[in-house]
Amino acid sequence: MELAQRNYQNASAGLEALFAASNPSVISFSGGYPDRKLFPTRELNQAFAHSFSGADPELLQYASASGFQPLRQKLAARMQQDGMTVTDQDVLLTQGAQQGIDLTARLLLNVGDGLVVEGPTYVGALAAFDAYQPTYHVVPVEADGMDLHALQKVLMTQSVKLIYTIPDFQNPTGTVMSLAKRKALIALANQYDVMILEDGPYRDLRYTGANLPTLQSLDTQGRVIFLGSFSKILAPSLRLGWLVAQPDLLHHLTALKGGVDVESSNLMMHGINAYLEHNDLNAHIQQIRACYLEKKNLMVATLRQHLPAGCSVNDPDGGFFLWLQLPKGFDAEAFMNDTLMPQANVSFVPASVMVPGSGMTNGARLNFTGPTLAQIKTGALALCEALTQALAQPQRLRR
Amino acid sequence: MELAQRNYQNASAGLEALFAASNPSVISFSGGYPDRKLFPTRELNQAFAHSFSGADPELLQYASASGFQPLRQKLAARMQQDGMTVTDQDVLLTQGAQQGIDLTARLLLNVGDGLVVEGPTYVGALAAFDAYQPTYHVVPVEADGMDLHALQKVLMTQSVKLIYTIPDFQNPTGTVMSLAKRKALIALANQYDVMILEDGPYRDLRYTGANLPTLQSLDTQGRVIFLGSFSKILAPSLRLGWLVAQPDLLHHLTALKGGVDVESSNLMMHGINAYLEHNDLNAHIQQIRACYLEKKNLMVATLRQHLPAGCSVNDPDGGFFLWLQLPKGFDAEAFMNDTLMPQANVSFVPASVMVPGSGMTNGARLNFTGPTLAQIKTGALALCEALTQALAQPQRLRR
Repeated sequence: MELAQRNYQNASAGLEALFAASNPSVISFSGGYPDRKLFPTRELNQAFAHSFSGADPELLQYASASGFQPLRQKLAARMQQDGMTVTDQDVLLTQGAQQGIDLTARLLLNVGDGLVVEGPTYVGALAAFDAYQPTYHVVPVEADGMDLHALQKVLMTQSVKLIYTIPDFQNPTGTVMSLAKRKALIALANQYDVMILEDGPYRDLRYTGANLPTLQSLDTQGRVIFLGSFSKILAPSLRLGWLVAQPDLLHHLTALKGGVDVESSNLMMHGINAYLEHNDLNAHIQQIRACYLEKKNLMVATLRQHLPAGCSVNDPDGGFFLWLQLPKGFDAEAFMNDTLMPQANVSFVPASVMVPGSGMTNGARLNFTGPTLAQIKTGALALCEALTQALAQPQRLRR
Repeated sequence: MELAQRNYQNASAGLEALFAASNPSVISFSGGYPDRKLFPTRELNQAFAHSFSGADPELLQYASASGFQPLRQKLAARMQQDGMTVTDQDVLLTQGAQQGIDLTARLLLNVGDGLVVEGPTYVGALAAFDAYQPTYHVVPVEADGMDLHALQKVLMTQSVKLIYTIPDFQNPTGTVMSLAKRKALIALANQYDVMILEDGPYRDLRYTGANLPTLQSLDTQGRVIFLGSFSKILAPSLRLGWLVAQPDLLHHLTALKGGVDVESSNLMMHGINAYLEHNDLNAHIQQIRACYLEKKNLMVATLRQHLPAGCSVNDPDGGFFLWLQLPKGFDAEAFMNDTLMPQANVSFVPASVMVPGSGMTNGARLNFTGPTLAQIKTGALALCEALTQALAQPQRLRR
């Protein structure tokens, strides 16, 4: 049996490995897992019980592909407070932000269409995009976001349909796109008639400093599709995200969702809506921020104290990840598979799987939200020790 | 902004309209809605409460793309009792059976690949398939299932990758594929090296007679992918279905699900698993069967008594739908939009949206599970009256 050509790309396998149930003996810096201690289990239980005992006879019935209107309204209100011009009519509820990536690609990308992604980028986005067989153009990520000179070169010489970016606490580098770059990116998109997919699952998780405007709020031509998610601020197993797009596109995206999975769970949407009605999500997010700031600080401090020369980590203002920069020519994937996992039972995500075409080897994504403080300390020390040993062996350097 | 070519097909809009929240003043024979009075709301509430108060710290965390193992095991056991050779390792949990259709198409279909569908077929399947731009080959449905002579002609002359069929209480005709045809279909698939997608959401809902073996259980070459769903036997808003495939294909399908929406909701899967542990699903299904048999009998009897000459309905042994056969040349879609809805506030699904290329106009799908007994009586009488009037006007016949 011949499979469709789209299945011979490589990224899907990366995502599967990434989210595979972790072996409890492994200290995982690789997943994008929230701290399970922060899940508001009791409050969500009450919210679901409230929904079940409510008077709505349609709770367990088919509802609508757009999603439960009161929840869309609450999300629109949250985004309005964040400076976005959005009503409930502009929102589509999705199976996590992941489905928003898939639906956007499905709406826009023919086989071979030009797609700009940051290098490195979210491996799950590549898994979604791969199915539509785009032509990838990789634009490097700098400390203040996408390299816009490199982007402009691509836009001048290539036909590009869509730019995928995570401007806030980028996955995997943790970087934030500067305001100047946000404005310049919108101007470039206007100039070259390109759409932008703004993936914002970490936007609420800023630990220091103040947020910058979303690309969506700077867009005046309906070029930005924005994605949000409850996975990082409430719980991943709710599998609920949302998508904002201009009306024409939203109409098409909603129809596409019908073909993909009919609609999201009405029960789930009612439960989350009840949670938001009876709890203060912002207060909950404050607790999350305090916990993750402490974890991030411990990981950064431990690594900065013990990393060997030639290695460095950044110190992002939010999100889930640090970026570990390794010496030129170092193969992080081989190091993890051959040394770090077997010797120290520590895992990370190597750069190679996060860049289409695997052009980058000397970096890794480190997650600091999932592991405990004790695991962060132990794992970071073990990582530094293994790296120190590996760098003493020059054959580790691939070129 | 140029959309991808896949969006210029037509079926997606049909699905959206079909599942749109129904106007309460309309008697809808169009949706595929279960009777909301049958939802085990209290039991599901208890099951979710049980899951929330259980000791599993991973309830709200990311879990796995395959889905919660104890639930896969229970489903495998149910399918074993149904004569299928299946273990939990062969099952992927999906967002309803709808996602199983999408994932299968994603796995197998390149643009232009040959796809056999029954004519008429499930409009939502067409919405899923359209995204992959297959070449449709429509094979008529007879009283005992797909016309295999027509199928063989297609297989002899065309390159076909996949056959999509609903052998049990077909959507929309309610027909059951005979055992002889099931065996012959498998033989044809083997002979011409074609895959089969067996969509089985209604299989448990037989009201009279005994079930025949699934295509999956007759397959010895791993050619059948089977889809099941909780939507019709528990509740649609759980949005949980399952897919059975041979190991190689299942591995690919699981990776594809990662790219589509990461995984299904761990919370939802725990809740359903707890429901199955503490309740007798088969006893619940018996209640559903009794209710739907009464509804079906009322609709069939009312229609058979009052339909004008040249119109007829069948009397399926199970499922959700009757098929209304109308005189040759009658345009059911125009009749519904111009007469039935404005005059009588009754809706159905016209044949034209359920056949790729809209080659069929003189039929309609009638759902008998969603409306109340009173609505069935009133709506069926109104339908007969409107049809009688319409057929007295010869311009109703298009050719």
